[in-house]
Order: sequence, then C-alpha cells, then structure tokens
Amino acid sequence: MNILIRLRNLKNSLQTKIRIAIWSLEYPGRVEFGDCVSSRDVMRLRLGPEGSLVVGDGTFFNNGCSLNCMKRIEIGRNCLFGENVTVYDHNHRFSSFSRLAEQGYKSASIKIGDNCWLGTNVVVLKGVTIGDGCVVGANVVVASDIPPDSIVTQSRDLNIAPIIRTN
Amino acid sequence: MNILIRLRNLKNSLQTKIRIAIWSLEYPGRVEFGDCVSSRDVMRLRLGPEGSLVVGDGTFFNNGCSLNCMKRIEIGRNCLFGENVTVYDHNHRFSSFSRLAEQGYKSASIKIGDNCWLGTNVVVLKGVTIGDGCVVGANVVVASDIPPDSIVTQSRDLNIAPIIRTN
Amino acid sequence: MNILIRLRNLKNSLQTKIRIAIWSLEYPGRVEFGDCVSSRDVMRLRLGPEGSLVVGDGTFFNNGCSLNCMKRIEIGRNCLFGENVTVYDHNHRFSSFSRLAEQGYKSASIKIGDNCWLGTNVVVLKGVTIGDGCVVGANVVVASDIPPDSIVTQSRDLNIAPIIRTN
Repeated sequence: MNILIRLRNLKNSLQTKIRIAIWSLEYPGRVEFGDCVSSRDVMRLRLGPEGSLVVGDGTFFNNGCSLNCMKRIEIGRNCLFGENVTVYDHNHRFSSFSRLAEQGYKSASIKIGDNCWLGTNVVVLKGVTIGDGCVVGANVVVASDIPPDSIVTQSRDLNIAPIIRTN
Repeated sequence: MNILIRLRNLKNSLQTKIRIAIWSLEYPGRVEFGDCVSSRDVMRLRLGPEGSLVVGDGTFFNNGCSLNCMKRIEIGRNCLFGENVTVYDHNHRFSSFSRLAEQGYKSASIKIGDNCWLGTNVVVLKGVTIGDGCVVGANVVVASDIPPDSIVTQSRDLNIAPIIRTN
Repeated sequence: MNILIRLRNLKNSLQTKIRIAIWSLEYPGRVEFGDCVSSRDVMRLRLGPEGSLVVGDGTFFNNGCSLNCMKRIEIGRNCLFGENVTVYDHNHRFSSFSRLAEQGYKSASIKIGDNCWLGTNVVVLKGVTIGDGCVVGANVVVASDIPPDSIVTQSRDLNIAPIIRTN
C-alpha cells in the first residue's frame, strides 16, 4: 500500500508550490506540507500505511530527491535539499535466513531541523536527528545525529596516484 | 552496438514483471531474467556485443538502477537493489596518450549472490564477487570481493565542525 | 533567472550532437560547446546571469549529469563524464542567521582539463582545477585541485563485518 507520486514543474523558471491537495486525497492528515514548499523537478515520496511526513514552510528540493517514510520524517522550515538527496526512516531487516523482502523493516523517526542545507547525493538514514542550521556536504551518509549549527563533510582523504602512460 | 532500454511501471502500486520478450528480440540468449524480477521505475541496461546478463528470480530494482555489461554480470535471486545502484563490469582504459574513447575497455565479470541488499547509490565495479546474503550500505563503492553474509559500510568518520554565525 | 534545459537523445543508438543553437538563443556568447559534444540521455544545465560554460570538442556526458554555473565552468576536450556527475561552481552562503535562500552564493571558477574521465556520482565543487588526463573514481567528491595525469579514488577502507543470522 505504498504510493509513488511524481511532481513536475513544467515551468522551470518558476518554483511552483506543491499542492497539498494531491496528497490529502490519498492519505488525509498524514502528509503535511507548509507554505511555499517547492521541488525543482521530479521528487519521489513513498509512505507506508503508518508513515507520516511533515515538511516546513519554504523548504526546497532540487532534482531527484526521494523521501521514504514508514514511521515519521519531519523536515523543518527553509531547508535546501540538493540533487538526489534520499531519506529513509527504515531499513530492511536481515537477521534471519528467509528472503529479505519477507523480513520487513526496522523503522525509526527522522528529524531534520530548520534552515539546513543537504548537499548532492546525501543519504539520511533511520533514527537520525539533524539539528537546526546544519550543512551536510555532498555524498555524505548521515547515520547518526548531527548537533545544531554543524558543517559535516565526508573524509576527504582521497587516494591520489600518478598515471604512467606509454604509447 | 549498445542498447539502452527503459522500463516504466505505469501502475505504481503493482510491481510488474519485466517481460523477457523485450530483451530476447535484441539479444536472444544473452539476457536472462528469472521470474518476478521487478523494477520500481526506470532501469537502464547496456550490453556490449559480448555482454551477458543474468538476474535471478525475485530480484527487485528500485528507481534509477543501471547495469552496464561488456562481459558478464550475474545477479542472484531475491536481491534488493536500492535507488541509483550502478554496476559496471568494465572500465575505460587510460594507459596511453590517445583519446579515452579510443582506448577501449578492460572487462571482468561480476557476480552478486542471492539475497543481497545493495543500498542507495552503491557502485559495483568490474571483477567483483559479492557473496550470498550481503548488505552493502548507502554510497559504498565495491571495488573488491565481499565474503558471504557480510555487512559493508563506508567509513563513517565524518568531519563535523561548528558553524560560527554572525549577523 | 536560471534556466533548466533537458536534452533527450530519442535515438539511443546514435549519439547526437547537442546543438549550440538551443543555447545561444538564451545566453548568446555564454555557453560554448565544441564539436561532437554528446549526452547519452538527460543532462541538466543551470546558469546564473553571470555564468559562463565552455565544453571542449568530443566530450561525452552519460545519463543524469548536471552542470551548475554561476561564474565559470570550463571543461576540456574528449572528456568522459559518467552517470550522475554533478558540477557546482558555487555554494550557498551560510554565515548569517537569516534564511539560507536569502544569503546568496560564493562562487569560484572550475576548470577540468582535456581527456579526463569522471566516474559515476562524482561531485566537483567550486574553485577546483582538475588537470589534463585525470581519472576520478566513482562517488568521489572533488573539493581541491588534482594535478594532471592523476588517478583519484575515495578511501576504500570499508567496514566489513559478519552478519550473524538466526531462524
């Protein structure tokens, strides 16, 4: 009983408000979008039968974001989500030998504060709280809590080696 | 001589079986999908003239997965692929000074076992074997073999620093 | 005053040249594509009013690449961009307490040399120079300069632990 909804801004130069009406038809009371929530392009939302999703006023989602909610995802006001940010408040269970798809989920609520910026390809996992005013760098996996007003980046210890070329 | 095929599940609430018929028209015998293989949304497959791709029964692909096959990619039964998982059994060669696109590929077969769960944005590179029952965390690049029944995550040593704000 | 343009190659087996005509209508002189630039599927370009973007002859973009330009992005000849490569020559400012979206951007030009290969999900950040002939591995975030003829990979120190299962 999941839903997948695609929102398209046909007029690219305008950021259109996502209309709450679309949601309330399917799951009245469980999806709550503030004023002036917008998405640049396609955004994917999936909610399980017990899932509730709240997005505060003025929050913006860049291309390809995906919010997946079995329990509760709460996103504050005036956040900026970069491209392909994914948020999952649940994991597959995998502690028995049976098929993964039959083992169900472990869920834990996610809370993202006001005025947060999540960079490209950030993944937010179940049970995480990200405080107000945080900046999360590109490609970071957030698996534990982030205190308010923090900047978080991946380890940038890249391996750099010369390429020896021959002809 | 590559192909790019897009499969769309128009009815989102149902997971439709990918029909083998589509493939066999182009490359009879080289793409083999088991029963009840499904894809939530768009899935991208590319096969070179020598490529062979096998996907076992009951394996599921979330949005935006991409399988790219010059030699052989074998995926087991009942796997769950997260969003944007990409699998490449080949790399560009870059050992000479000529144009990259003219240097061709190095290929090595990939094998992913049964009942594996690959998280969002996982990238699986050439020559890798992932054993049965593995769980690969979000954003991991798999460049070497993973023994069966392993859970694999990126280093989660994030750099977290306070933001000092002024008005 | 940004633009979002989508290019689709309807004929997948042919790599179609991106026509410069499309761009010059909107921002004459600010987007410059060389000969035989191609994109496999959708490519997203965003330019601010001061942005300039140059792409050299023969450069190829795989599915889902995104170039975002407030100042200047210069990409050399014969590069290969993997899937979902994103390039941003600007960051949101976040040094005051006001709303993120009102604080504007910090921009710094990006230069990517000739004959570079950027892997899947690579993110290139503002101010970076990548020398000629570089190879950047999947999921790498490039936040500082890369000397010419380098191969760059993420730390591949994965955490691998056994899964203990019970029935």
